[in-house]
Amino acid sequence: MSVTPLDSALFSGSLNDPQVSQLFNDGARIRAMLRVEAALARAQGALGVIPEEAADIIERTCSAWAPEPEGFAGATARDGVPVPALVAGLREAVGEPHATHVHYGATSQDIADTAFVLCLRSALDVIGPRLDDLCATLANLADAHRPTLCLSRTRGMQAVPTVFGLKAANWLAQVARARDELAEVRKTALVLSLGGAAGTMAALGPQAFETAGAMGNVLKLEVASTPWHAQRDRLTVAAGWMARMCGALGKMGADMAILAQSEVGEITFEGAGGSSTMPNKANPVAAEILVALARLTAALTGPMHETQVAANERDGSAWMLEWLALPQMVCAAGSASARALDAVRTLRIDQTRMRANLDASNGLVLAEAATFALMDAGFDRTVATGLVKQACSRTCGDTHMVDALRELADETDVDWDCLRNPANAIGQADALIDRALAEAGIGQD
Amino acid sequence: MSVTPLDSALFSGSLNDPQVSQLFNDGARIRAMLRVEAALARAQGALGVIPEEAADIIERTCSAWAPEPEGFAGATARDGVPVPALVAGLREAVGEPHATHVHYGATSQDIADTAFVLCLRSALDVIGPRLDDLCATLANLADAHRPTLCLSRTRGMQAVPTVFGLKAANWLAQVARARDELAEVRKTALVLSLGGAAGTMAALGPQAFETAGAMGNVLKLEVASTPWHAQRDRLTVAAGWMARMCGALGKMGADMAILAQSEVGEITFEGAGGSSTMPNKANPVAAEILVALARLTAALTGPMHETQVAANERDGSAWMLEWLALPQMVCAAGSASARALDAVRTLRIDQTRMRANLDASNGLVLAEAATFALMDAGFDRTVATGLVKQACSRTCGDTHMVDALRELADETDVDWDCLRNPANAIGQADALIDRALAEAGIGQD
Amino acid sequence: MSVTPLDSALFSGSLNDPQVSQLFNDGARIRAMLRVEAALARAQGALGVIPEEAADIIERTCSAWAPEPEGFAGATARDGVPVPALVAGLREAVGEPHATHVHYGATSQDIADTAFVLCLRSALDVIGPRLDDLCATLANLADAHRPTLCLSRTRGMQAVPTVFGLKAANWLAQVARARDELAEVRKTALVLSLGGAAGTMAALGPQAFETAGAMGNVLKLEVASTPWHAQRDRLTVAAGWMARMCGALGKMGADMAILAQSEVGEITFEGAGGSSTMPNKANPVAAEILVALARLTAALTGPMHETQVAANERDGSAWMLEWLALPQMVCAAGSASARALDAVRTLRIDQTRMRANLDASNGLVLAEAATFALMDAGFDRTVATGLVKQACSRTCGDTHMVDALRELADETDVDWDCLRNPANAIGQADALIDRALAEAGIGQD
Amino acid sequence: MSVTPLDSALFSGSLNDPQVSQLFNDGARIRAMLRVEAALARAQGALGVIPEEAADIIERTCSAWAPEPEGFAGATARDGVPVPALVAGLREAVGEPHATHVHYGATSQDIADTAFVLCLRSALDVIGPRLDDLCATLANLADAHRPTLCLSRTRGMQAVPTVFGLKAANWLAQVARARDELAEVRKTALVLSLGGAAGTMAALGPQAFETAGAMGNVLKLEVASTPWHAQRDRLTVAAGWMARMCGALGKMGADMAILAQSEVGEITFEGAGGSSTMPNKANPVAAEILVALARLTAALTGPMHETQVAANERDGSAWMLEWLALPQMVCAAGSASARALDAVRTLRIDQTRMRANLDASNGLVLAEAATFALMDAGFDRTVATGLVKQACSRTCGDTHMVDALRELADETDVDWDCLRNPANAIGQADALIDRALAEAGIGQD
Repeated sequence: MSVTPLDSALFSGSLNDPQVSQLFNDGARIRAMLRVEAALARAQGALGVIPEEAADIIERTCSAWAPEPEGFAGATARDGVPVPALVAGLREAVGEPHATHVHYGATSQDIADTAFVLCLRSALDVIGPRLDDLCATLANLADAHRPTLCLSRTRGMQAVPTVFGLKAANWLAQVARARDELAEVRKTALVLSLGGAAGTMAALGPQAFETAGAMGNVLKLEVASTPWHAQRDRLTVAAGWMARMCGALGKMGADMAILAQSEVGEITFEGAGGSSTMPNKANPVAAEILVALARLTAALTGPMHETQVAANERDGSAWMLEWLALPQMVCAAGSASARALDAVRTLRIDQTRMRANLDASNGLVLAEAATFALMDAGFDRTVATGLVKQACSRTCGDTHMVDALRELADETDVDWDCLRNPANAIGQADALIDRALAEAGIGQD
Repeated sequence: MSVTPLDSALFSGSLNDPQVSQLFNDGARIRAMLRVEAALARAQGALGVIPEEAADIIERTCSAWAPEPEGFAGATARDGVPVPALVAGLREAVGEPHATHVHYGATSQDIADTAFVLCLRSALDVIGPRLDDLCATLANLADAHRPTLCLSRTRGMQAVPTVFGLKAANWLAQVARARDELAEVRKTALVLSLGGAAGTMAALGPQAFETAGAMGNVLKLEVASTPWHAQRDRLTVAAGWMARMCGALGKMGADMAILAQSEVGEITFEGAGGSSTMPNKANPVAAEILVALARLTAALTGPMHETQVAANERDGSAWMLEWLALPQMVCAAGSASARALDAVRTLRIDQTRMRANLDASNGLVLAEAATFALMDAGFDRTVATGLVKQACSRTCGDTHMVDALRELADETDVDWDCLRNPANAIGQADALIDRALAEAGIGQD
Repeated sequence: MSVTPLDSALFSGSLNDPQVSQLFNDGARIRAMLRVEAALARAQGALGVIPEEAADIIERTCSAWAPEPEGFAGATARDGVPVPALVAGLREAVGEPHATHVHYGATSQDIADTAFVLCLRSALDVIGPRLDDLCATLANLADAHRPTLCLSRTRGMQAVPTVFGLKAANWLAQVARARDELAEVRKTALVLSLGGAAGTMAALGPQAFETAGAMGNVLKLEVASTPWHAQRDRLTVAAGWMARMCGALGKMGADMAILAQSEVGEITFEGAGGSSTMPNKANPVAAEILVALARLTAALTGPMHETQVAANERDGSAWMLEWLALPQMVCAAGSASARALDAVRTLRIDQTRMRANLDASNGLVLAEAATFALMDAGFDRTVATGLVKQACSRTCGDTHMVDALRELADETDVDWDCLRNPANAIGQADALIDRALAEAGIGQD
Repeated sequence: MSVTPLDSALFSGSLNDPQVSQLFNDGARIRAMLRVEAALARAQGALGVIPEEAADIIERTCSAWAPEPEGFAGATARDGVPVPALVAGLREAVGEPHATHVHYGATSQDIADTAFVLCLRSALDVIGPRLDDLCATLANLADAHRPTLCLSRTRGMQAVPTVFGLKAANWLAQVARARDELAEVRKTALVLSLGGAAGTMAALGPQAFETAGAMGNVLKLEVASTPWHAQRDRLTVAAGWMARMCGALGKMGADMAILAQSEVGEITFEGAGGSSTMPNKANPVAAEILVALARLTAALTGPMHETQVAANERDGSAWMLEWLALPQMVCAAGSASARALDAVRTLRIDQTRMRANLDASNGLVLAEAATFALMDAGFDRTVATGLVKQACSRTCGDTHMVDALRELADETDVDWDCLRNPANAIGQADALIDRALAEAGIGQD
């Protein structure tokens, strides 16, 4: 474990998804900031704001230079942000006469924010395709398990019959919506920051907007209508999405943990986690991780939304709070998406146990269906409910609820055999699976 | 004060916006639930699922019946949700022979969730137009104060000159985006719930989807592709929006509180709050409220995102957490929108003080502009920065920074008079205001 | 439902504990503020700061006067706090010549904070004895169920045998610690506030400390060493305690919800909640409530801790955030304590089912015990573990793990009958129950 | 920046306090776990539970072995916790015949929890003395600035005169209480975990309690009365303390940020942070950090309290949430304590500016004092308040409020010169400083 397991080597492949967490380590952050400085110089060189030659050498230096993060610590402690020291170092590396054209007219926050956006984009480039895969896998699960009868559970209690395919379709529905939301999130959050000292673009000169546009072209980022130094709603959209996506996966994890419980036993995970002392156990680790990451990202939406309360033209304290909260949310989203894929891919569904659990209720979960069957046969609701409750109380290992009810109701207008079969009590499960697949844009052929 | 000031009579018109909070009191909640039962009956009557006559009497009873909430407390304590008791009462009120057709095939959560959605929609109907008004007012402020020179502040320090119009434009940008997001939020969150016991729609019969569609027509709600009993992402979208909107207003409040500080004094509020012991004071109450509500709604996004971790087909505990968190977020959003309008409408801008504060810096805030002016005149950046720092250190009550610099630099290629005028140092402020107005869709003619 | 179910009439007796929530309604808050004004006058009268006669009439008026909260709304909206309007009304009610001696030298926050402390004290007076009762009941449960064999579960999986008494002892341990913490919480949080305009006590005159002391005597509150207008750590101690106590109860609720699951079925609640459509169900409502309240209070610790970041001598925004967060935490603590008592009092323990579930594992949960038994008999750990794993894989409906192992191990030094009995595998359960009872200060005789 | 700046090399000495953060890196965590395994072996060796020779070699191996964290990642991903893989590696390193005596009777959580407690203790050993230093420094500040007249501010407005020493005393009060609370926090949170598979201590044998006691002696940790695998209140006490301590420092930071504002200018920090583009600025970086860390730790109390809702005998998901939240809280507390010391040590107090700001109010902040002076001279409160309000409205650059009032009141019974001097309006400031020093246990001699 490290300060956070999200980038601990010990937890690589579990709470730490290195493909995403490495995008936020010191080296990657420095490279991203240098890439932004390079793009600024390139844009200003093309526009004649700085000499083309300066742009060339700055760009080359930004590519080649790989400073040690430790070297910036002292200055960062003084300035509160690593950019001034990085710019000083870059100027030294660029040397005369072009040092002066480094970071020309920009402010630290322009560089740091845009660099963060680049890292965020790389992370979303990793996470997005995973969600596509996950949707496809869940859609397959839903489609394949249309006939897999099992129990539904509400408020912890066995409720009525359903099929496992519908459970998967319910997981799919939220994941697919999160996947669909991503395009809008990218549009909102992945924007260039270039406002200068206080968002007036003053030192960027008369070609300020052209500079921003050209820089955006280099980095393939849209330019916000106004500098967002103190407009942090864009990043709360991203943060909310991370939490919502992790929430969707956390729901799946919570369900899986229950289905994997010893007493339920309807699913297992191939290669599931062991205990240091109990050889009998196989812990649903991925499911637990999904729940934990959902709760962490949920909690971090709080401080993220607070970063919007950024005072004046730029607010150091709110900005730091963002640094403390947002990267870990992105890494958590990375880990959650990776573990969710692991979970669905190693999922083993025990249809026999599902059916056995269903049958073990001995018809109790047909209580609602029975009530409606009696009402269809002309019974008053109160009478019907009373009879079913009585039948439920007579249900035991030897007596099926429907048989008890049949005896109590003494009614020939009910198709008792039909009622006794849970396959006739799954309502619109099939159509609902169709609808979930259609909403997710996944055809079944 | 009450358990929450959000619906306390003492705080009516401040932390409590009665127009929104009354939508969530017991009576309103009961009425909304009855409206949903009526719509279900109406839909089922039209489709022949229940007799038309039953639909008529149920609908009429739902309109006429106004039970006391106290009466349901005992049953709600037993059932965990008020719907079973309400349905029982409604059945009694409907009487035989149609009692049986009340709540036909639905589950408690269908009714409670749809009723909540109706209340939420009413709240958004109140809040939306306020945001329109707020955008219009902020746009006017931005446009009117294009020439109003003042200070920008970054990290608490006076930074460079700007105009008040750009401050207003920055407020507008976030509020307008929140306003624009609302349509999508409504589409996502304002959907009918009708899934039956465990989301299979089993007891709703073969015409389950038609029933949902017809019920949606009655209530003017879209039908979700799949029942969302345990898909709570839709409401986290709404919750995130409340927090983001309150965050946008909280930023405005934070700025206003600073501008109203005794030492800054650039704005006041007409009729601002008094002290019980200090006749000299005028507290920026609305600004404080905006900050407090931003922080509250931010914090409540946490539990709201956690409600997504809803186990199985329906989860009582996660659902209750939603009841505890979401209505207060909506009311907070109501209060914030009302107070924000109050604040901008009672805002008095002291242009003289703004200019005086700017001038009192004696040119210190022209340091960046001066550095670039020297560089434009051929000075090396290091030399320029050094000279400007020296000039800053010589600046005092009698000596303007630009004058000190002029003496130090001894340079004729700089237009010293131009540099001395902060109006020449506001960069792209005007164009940025244009862009903010355009993004907000508000023309200036 | 109301803005919060915590004071909704619909939820009275479930999420709303009226005994506590009524302490925080508008009327109670006004009465508390008047009681503080009366105490201030009484103290100042006794010390001669104001005339005795003034004190008498102020005290009498404070007792007799019962203004409508609505009447203060306008002024509260202007001032941000109801005290100035209340003081003005009280002065009018007191009349000349003593109106002037009302609220003499105090500031609004002195009155509002001290009044809140009085309400908080009343709430703790309700909650404290409930925790005593709860501890006694849990201690009885723990003691009575020393021999009640059942399963332990770790990470959702059946682990090793234990006894139900130890589960109850584990619940007791946390609840008893919360109960024990209460005395310190009261000492820290239940203190008088009397600092005047900005905490210098200036307008309270030379007898400021004597006034505070005498006022404290009247109200039976300690006087803080320095005014705590902007020292909010005291209330975060109280808030943290609410969350910790609700967390302790939430743990119990989470366990109960699992034990009550259909598939586990080891407990039920007398009179448990019904479904509006499924006559077979009995929802563990109290357990769900405990979990929901634990999560709500957990989330609200965030904003409460933030109230410590109170700027300057008094901070309106941080103070309002406290009003929005703390009273609902106290009410949640009230409801949680009431529901926890309900839950343990209506708890029905199904010892037969507990034993049946244990036996149904067919010895799998004896895997750890078996491994150690083999090692004691001289087997190497790796060999022992291997054999036990093999035995576990052979375990099925017909074959007990210990029998399978016996065959595999072919070892006479193991007491197989002893190993086969889960009652021999509960370790120190009995001594641990003793220790929990002793720590809770509850003897067993 | 790294995933969290709390352990980023870039932020070493600012958001990252390496003295604390290094205690939580992978290597330190592995060393702590090995130390716990060694202590277990040592205890069991001494008691004859395992051979003395085994204990010796296990202890030696635990000291000498320094495995790479990467090596455990795969197994940790499978098991969800690094202990099984660590134990396997340790057994291999110990070799036959004593491998079998490694981790004898313990469960993973015993090791991981106790190891975390050791890391936490080391962190508190660093933080505690810093708080002592901070208290001493603040006490000196408070004592030294008894006569330093300045403004108090309430709700952002200049209120009444005070002294800077009282501001420092108010900071001291909360910090000293946090320091005092630490002893109890250590007692509650720094306890050994040794419960075995499910907290029954079954595999630890008949000497289970003796083993725990001896192991506690080795590690200098108390033994909890009952295993705390699923009793997480102890760690919420620690978490709440971190947040409360950071809150106390965040309040100081918020105040300092305001006092350092350009418009207030009453304090500066030696060597304060620069801007990458504005040579005129000196950002109050340490103050900003304190506020950001207060908000982060506040937010993380939420998930920490939720870890109490740990299901059954051990809960993987709640445990992981703790790993994700608590170490960063401890590191944040480390950074906050370090930066707070930096801040008070580099603090430069500008007494001249404080006095100038006070005088610039031209007597407005004497309004309360003037009202009471008039009342003392026999004026009715309403009249007095009216006169003072009138005088306030006449106050301007040339006219002092007291002079305006003198003219309006035309009263000889008031000592106008005395009233005009703010030094006579600071109430009990001196005595309050005495009380704060006394409460903090810091004498002034």
